[in-house]
Amino acid sequence: MQPLALTMGDPAGIGGELSLRAWLALRHTPHRFVLLDDPDHLRRLAASLHLDVPIVTLSCPAEAPACFPDALPVLPVPLAAPAKPGHPDPANATAVIAAIEQATALTQRGQTGGVVTNPINKAALYQAGFAYPGHTEFLAALTGVPGQEIMMLASPQLRVVPVTVHVSLRDALASLTPARIAAAARTVATALQRDFGIARPCLAIAGLNPHAGEQGALGDEETTIIAPAMATLRAEGIDVSGPWPPDTMFTAAARQRYDAAICMYHDQALIPLKTLDMDHGVNVTLGLPIVRTSPDHGTAYDIAGKGIADATSLIAAITLATELAERRSRSNPA
Amino acid sequence: MQPLALTMGDPAGIGGELSLRAWLALRHTPHRFVLLDDPDHLRRLAASLHLDVPIVTLSCPAEAPACFPDALPVLPVPLAAPAKPGHPDPANATAVIAAIEQATALTQRGQTGGVVTNPINKAALYQAGFAYPGHTEFLAALTGVPGQEIMMLASPQLRVVPVTVHVSLRDALASLTPARIAAAARTVATALQRDFGIARPCLAIAGLNPHAGEQGALGDEETTIIAPAMATLRAEGIDVSGPWPPDTMFTAAARQRYDAAICMYHDQALIPLKTLDMDHGVNVTLGLPIVRTSPDHGTAYDIAGKGIADATSLIAAITLATELAERRSRSNPA
Repeated sequence: MQPLALTMGDPAGIGGELSLRAWLALRHTPHRFVLLDDPDHLRRLAASLHLDVPIVTLSCPAEAPACFPDALPVLPVPLAAPAKPGHPDPANATAVIAAIEQATALTQRGQTGGVVTNPINKAALYQAGFAYPGHTEFLAALTGVPGQEIMMLASPQLRVVPVTVHVSLRDALASLTPARIAAAARTVATALQRDFGIARPCLAIAGLNPHAGEQGALGDEETTIIAPAMATLRAEGIDVSGPWPPDTMFTAAARQRYDAAICMYHDQALIPLKTLDMDHGVNVTLGLPIVRTSPDHGTAYDIAGKGIADATSLIAAITLATELAERRSRSNPA
Repeated sequence: MQPLALTMGDPAGIGGELSLRAWLALRHTPHRFVLLDDPDHLRRLAASLHLDVPIVTLSCPAEAPACFPDALPVLPVPLAAPAKPGHPDPANATAVIAAIEQATALTQRGQTGGVVTNPINKAALYQAGFAYPGHTEFLAALTGVPGQEIMMLASPQLRVVPVTVHVSLRDALASLTPARIAAAARTVATALQRDFGIARPCLAIAGLNPHAGEQGALGDEETTIIAPAMATLRAEGIDVSGPWPPDTMFTAAARQRYDAAICMYHDQALIPLKTLDMDHGVNVTLGLPIVRTSPDHGTAYDIAGKGIADATSLIAAITLATELAERRSRSNPA
């Protein structure tokens, strides 16, 4: 089993300290990763936070598993300027982007098992010419499948997939089509079978309106948009149910009846996930030729460098990526 | 302290059996209610479900507290036709409506302390000429404050108030105005002080869009609609915060920072409430001159008469109504 490739994220954010803490938490487990980051930056950060994390600089990920219990393995990606916690510096944008590109290339070549990304700051990258709305779209472009990326949020209690994501609620309503819903659900069904080991995944399709429209009295998108998507999916043999009233489909009892909820807009998916479990949510990108996860939070500049950032979500992201990568490597032995 | 007035709801639904079970659960507590229902129907129902509930028929609510520990006190409202579980009968619509009218009148006269309503079926009532979208609007009209009713859902963990309620998501977006948001929040602040005993209530105002619009990148209603409402409320001395990103404002940590969340649409409010606690949610109508609560579920025709309906939400509705009525009677002694 290959180690995972973990990217630095924004060096002014909490990514560095989370990586150090994740190694401390995982060094004596079967989980293995190699960090793409600046070794000098990491050594200074560990010293300032009084974290006992020896750093070993590698030239190839293959060396990582053997040394992992004793030191955090790092593939060097040098920063152009010293990182100041809480103060993003466009001078380091090239390194931030290079770490993502290298992690992706290593994974595509089979040298690493999957990519786990620390949080980036889009605004700082835009100033350096980065042209993507975020990590996910960049990874889709790098791996040759632009527009096919689907965001899943997974926690121990719930998996949710918003069909529309980072657009206003008004634009989400306008951009919802049967084809988009069907494409998202199809990608989810494939990933649940191949990567999550669910032989026959059950997908719950959310309604859009209160009470799922109440037979048209409270909106008709359930009939005009969601039902046609469900008919398409059923014709393909995908097990879908719904459209469910959004307010009752995330209760403990309802969650037993499906493997993932296909949601119509960002907050319909993320409110229940984060309300149930703020810390263990993992962002999983489906639809890519590689495994990719990330923690479900941002750069947290306000607490960066203070030693109080919680690595729970990053650790969950590494744990889930390992599980997905193992299953994928078993089904596609090199 | 006056007893509460509990209405029959749809006699073909689960209201009758919930009322019997609520009496069994509460008879040895300080809670007191009088049920507006058909005594013969209740006796038959109790017998068929093997529930040991003696029924005592009263002519005046004042007699209810003394007899409550020994028998379920009932103010008779005769049904026109025998009730068949699961099969609503428009012939009984007059009785269903009369129970609501009488409970409201008794409470307005101070003979009962508040109204608790069992679920009704609007479709069955419409056929009998009922002209209101639901219970809540009917009660507002009966008490002379049409249009001033505000729905709160309250559970032990969270109180939420949707500014727009039973309309499509598209219509919710179109009908959101600063004045509506301010009116809802104002009513909530008053009720939290007077009825819930919170001296200085803190209201969390939800954003509408993902990440609360991300400074306009994901929608501008936070700036054009929500911010002006908040400015109005602050000028009136009401403690409001926000607009909060909807997906992170209902976490356990975030919930500690407010007494109620003012939400922009139905599911933004009801998804977190029901996801956290499906059984203990209580519907509270604010903005009326009387106290009114109801369980947070419908007539449940599919399980009516089978003896499996769960009275938890009705019991929570009675418990909360007692608390609200006591506080209101202390602040307005007759």
